[in-house]
Amino acid sequence: MNGSALPRLALTAGEPAGVGPELLVRLAATSLAANFVAITDRSLLERAAARCGTTITLIDDDGADTATRAAGSLRVRHIPLAAPEVPGTPDPSNAQHVLATLSEAARGCAEGRYAAVVTAPLQKSSINEAGIPFSGHTEFFAAQSHADVVMMLASPELRVALATTHLPLHAVSAAIDAFSLERTLRIVHAELRAKFGFSEPRIAVLGLNPHAGENGHIGHEEIDTIIPVLEKLRGQGMQLLGPLPADTAFVPAQRKRYDAVLAMYHDQALPVLKSEAFDRTVNLTLGLPFIRTSVDHGTALDLAGSGKADPSSLIAAANLALDLVARSRKVIQP
Amino acid sequence: MNGSALPRLALTAGEPAGVGPELLVRLAATSLAANFVAITDRSLLERAAARCGTTITLIDDDGADTATRAAGSLRVRHIPLAAPEVPGTPDPSNAQHVLATLSEAARGCAEGRYAAVVTAPLQKSSINEAGIPFSGHTEFFAAQSHADVVMMLASPELRVALATTHLPLHAVSAAIDAFSLERTLRIVHAELRAKFGFSEPRIAVLGLNPHAGENGHIGHEEIDTIIPVLEKLRGQGMQLLGPLPADTAFVPAQRKRYDAVLAMYHDQALPVLKSEAFDRTVNLTLGLPFIRTSVDHGTALDLAGSGKADPSSLIAAANLALDLVARSRKVIQP
Repeated sequence: MNGSALPRLALTAGEPAGVGPELLVRLAATSLAANFVAITDRSLLERAAARCGTTITLIDDDGADTATRAAGSLRVRHIPLAAPEVPGTPDPSNAQHVLATLSEAARGCAEGRYAAVVTAPLQKSSINEAGIPFSGHTEFFAAQSHADVVMMLASPELRVALATTHLPLHAVSAAIDAFSLERTLRIVHAELRAKFGFSEPRIAVLGLNPHAGENGHIGHEEIDTIIPVLEKLRGQGMQLLGPLPADTAFVPAQRKRYDAVLAMYHDQALPVLKSEAFDRTVNLTLGLPFIRTSVDHGTALDLAGSGKADPSSLIAAANLALDLVARSRKVIQP
Repeated sequence: MNGSALPRLALTAGEPAGVGPELLVRLAATSLAANFVAITDRSLLERAAARCGTTITLIDDDGADTATRAAGSLRVRHIPLAAPEVPGTPDPSNAQHVLATLSEAARGCAEGRYAAVVTAPLQKSSINEAGIPFSGHTEFFAAQSHADVVMMLASPELRVALATTHLPLHAVSAAIDAFSLERTLRIVHAELRAKFGFSEPRIAVLGLNPHAGENGHIGHEEIDTIIPVLEKLRGQGMQLLGPLPADTAFVPAQRKRYDAVLAMYHDQALPVLKSEAFDRTVNLTLGLPFIRTSVDHGTALDLAGSGKADPSSLIAAANLALDLVARSRKVIQP
């Protein structure tokens, strides 16, 4: 790609019966400076545009770079549906179609055909009903890339990586061990450099317990596990704050001190992020050999087909992907 | 007290060597429409005023009602120190003094001499070093009143009660049982009526697990414990939302639906509250036979004696106490 070309961003539509296809149409209608390539069924997009009461100009993708994109236009890498979609009712016979779109996105990123991938929501249960073991986009991309990954949620004001994700609360403490915590911190640190362009990233690490354990009075994981890992990695030059008490870690005076937060578990930090930036929160996957951002909501089956789904989160995900493409080029291609 | 009299608010200074005495001086300097009665050593307040570089008019409390209070004036219920304070260095020989101030505050509320009590921070460890088992203001007042209590944190925008407080995270799940959850909800409901004046309070209850357990896919406590308790209490007429996923429970659209939140544990909700209203967050104790509010910070021993401690949280606590005195009168004395 030459200097004046728009970044080629792969878009996957996710569940054909969900709001994904309509969200892609809405995203294409914006004037975002990206050369979007929708990896999905061409006719699915045409029907989604009709449901949105809008028109869309679909262009078969030839892999070319372009310096501009007309609002309302969208390149397509056609991957056919197995069965026509019925909005609101996922059909497991389309499961292989959905996975094929993800594979093409990852392969295209690896081959340099796409600068990043932005994913719309899929329906995990429908893929499982097709008899395919599948636990989500993140795990699929990680397996395909043979990568260890970390989930990060980001808004324009706050970046939060998670040491554990969708675990029952009672299982969280046992899941925080020195090995996994060190691996997670190394990924977060490396990706803040490589993808966010922070030459010396500052990471605030939360404690596991209230008041970060209060010197062992409220739990011992900080003393036994977290502090030793932080000291080891500080000794290797990482700038790490903490372990910080979660309740005061997000006050304005603290936020100035770090570029990202590592929270120990899901509900320790996501309520803060979403309460202040609900429709601007983007899910991204750290550790992959490419940039992947995602909406931070589900398939909204009750809204699918109505043309009324709010594209804010997908637009935020595309904006973050563009931002990261620009930031990572600064570091990697100085 | 007659209709035009100012509410008589008891103030305790907490740890004599902490920032409490100076905070009381700063509070007295405001024009808040309250008849403050500081329960502490008279000379301690004089020295605190000198450290703040200000003057204060101390009036021995005679129990009288007044319709006005001059800014900078403070009534005193003198309880003598055992040893002069050394700012920054708590002296266990003053532990009995601190406890005597709390006892007088609670007794005075019970006898109708004070409309509420507002507490400055104390130093738990110093009381323990005096050989006295003591785990905090809340537990002390609860024991003295033979009451079951619930901790609530409140800002002008959000009220959060806690089902568990200062427990290690690994112990939280086991501490959430149907009996204690029902008791907690009954206290929160009764107090939102009695002290906040909500005739039919709406309480949002958070799930314990991420996504409120996602129908048992991420933990079972919602299905086994929380939902049955909510259904039982709904059957008795309580307006209860949930169990809600914590990450989306605080978005603006949700906040309109409830008057208070019951969070399952400390770091599930306090980060939200403090990130948006750090110096306006007030700790209050639900379930006591009187109104008790508190600063939401510690003794700040490093600042004690400098006259520089920020009184925002104590002022917020006094304001909330005054608001609750007014609200509770509406319900109790219609």
